[in-house]
Amino acid sequence: MEVIEGRNPVIEALKAGRPLSRVLLDSTLTGQGVADQITSLCRSRGVEVEFVDRRVMDGQSTTGMHRGVMALGSTKKYVDLHDLMEITASRGEPALYLVLDGIEDPQNFGAILRTAEAAGIHGVVIRERRSVGITAAVARASAGAVEYVPVAMVSNIAQSLEVFKKNGVWAVGIDMSGEVSYTGVDFRLPTAIVIGGEGRGLSELVKKRCDLIASIPMKGQISSLNASVAAALVMYEALRQRAPR
Amino acid sequence: MEVIEGRNPVIEALKAGRPLSRVLLDSTLTGQGVADQITSLCRSRGVEVEFVDRRVMDGQSTTGMHRGVMALGSTKKYVDLHDLMEITASRGEPALYLVLDGIEDPQNFGAILRTAEAAGIHGVVIRERRSVGITAAVARASAGAVEYVPVAMVSNIAQSLEVFKKNGVWAVGIDMSGEVSYTGVDFRLPTAIVIGGEGRGLSELVKKRCDLIASIPMKGQISSLNASVAAALVMYEALRQRAPR
Repeated sequence: MEVIEGRNPVIEALKAGRPLSRVLLDSTLTGQGVADQITSLCRSRGVEVEFVDRRVMDGQSTTGMHRGVMALGSTKKYVDLHDLMEITASRGEPALYLVLDGIEDPQNFGAILRTAEAAGIHGVVIRERRSVGITAAVARASAGAVEYVPVAMVSNIAQSLEVFKKNGVWAVGIDMSGEVSYTGVDFRLPTAIVIGGEGRGLSELVKKRCDLIASIPMKGQISSLNASVAAALVMYEALRQRAPR
Repeated sequence: MEVIEGRNPVIEALKAGRPLSRVLLDSTLTGQGVADQITSLCRSRGVEVEFVDRRVMDGQSTTGMHRGVMALGSTKKYVDLHDLMEITASRGEPALYLVLDGIEDPQNFGAILRTAEAAGIHGVVIRERRSVGITAAVARASAGAVEYVPVAMVSNIAQSLEVFKKNGVWAVGIDMSGEVSYTGVDFRLPTAIVIGGEGRGLSELVKKRCDLIASIPMKGQISSLNASVAAALVMYEALRQRAPR
């Protein structure tokens, strides 16, 4: 496992959205400015922070230069969009991707990866900013599925949809504003399913780049579904339509 | 809100599976036998425990006889199976119930209630033993849906399925062993969807009482879905089939 040592390298890795499973801080730094800054960055990235005895850190250090701050890299590597399209080509099926426009809760992201793996999704696309990456908490919540689902991290979701579209992949956004039900969408075509973040839903920019906005019908008083449930329903509707009769 | 005061009344209420949102314990009881016993009962019921200053408890007490142990009742009342069938009759739709055979995680149960509300399920049936009831954590995870979905707590799921069957309601169990896909089930008939607990799935006794066992197809390496995702997929498949064309 990759280990990043020292204050600035760890801060930079967090800012760049690199896949980290955990950040270790010397417990004597509690309450100090550097600890507050790193804790706050970790929170926005969904990376766990652990305050530990300095000797624990010395034991994991290879450089001896950690100065009380250390990040453990994720064993999972991100792929890029072209890798995803190669995976699709190798499977000989129409593309089926899941694009997450800002999922921030590790439980939700883990649950989504678990369902994506079961549904046979070719790959998941997440964005760098205001989004949880692949962390230890996500891996746990995914029940191990994180090892099997290719994940691409991109700086701009809207641009990624353009790349997909140039390669013949439709972008279907899921949003309450959609006038067609998700069950009325033809998922036998090469498709990228686009799901918004918790609470906010799809961003306007991303919504504009979608070829179609579909909604999930709701019959009750509460106006939204959990993001991981919404993603599951759409992925499995695609699977249902693609199943041999 | 109902308040239950005193050690034995609280222990009995926990054992009987009464709807409790929270148990308060005098913080000076920490580590004592009675606190351990109650904490352990609460854990098995998914009820939150809070250790508080005795004066906080005095302020909420009406009898002054709490002796350091107090339970706050849920504002939600359980209904019974006949209430559920009356709700169905009043809606003028074929019955659609969700039966949970031992969901233990409050997050899962809350998520299930949220989706059940959105899908227009007529009522949810849970069992008394080894199952989480309606607690504060469940209410939170349900995003408020707990207020709208009727929940019946029964002592025996298998017997409840018999009651449903006598009233013309089919029992469809969801289990990996099912030879038919859930999308091949006719959910336009009056149906009770039966979902097993986390990890264990449906109990053998309950499986035997189901008219049909259906599975959710999985294409990956991981062999199970989260219980709340499985429940969501089946409820929304029923909704899809019942939607006017």
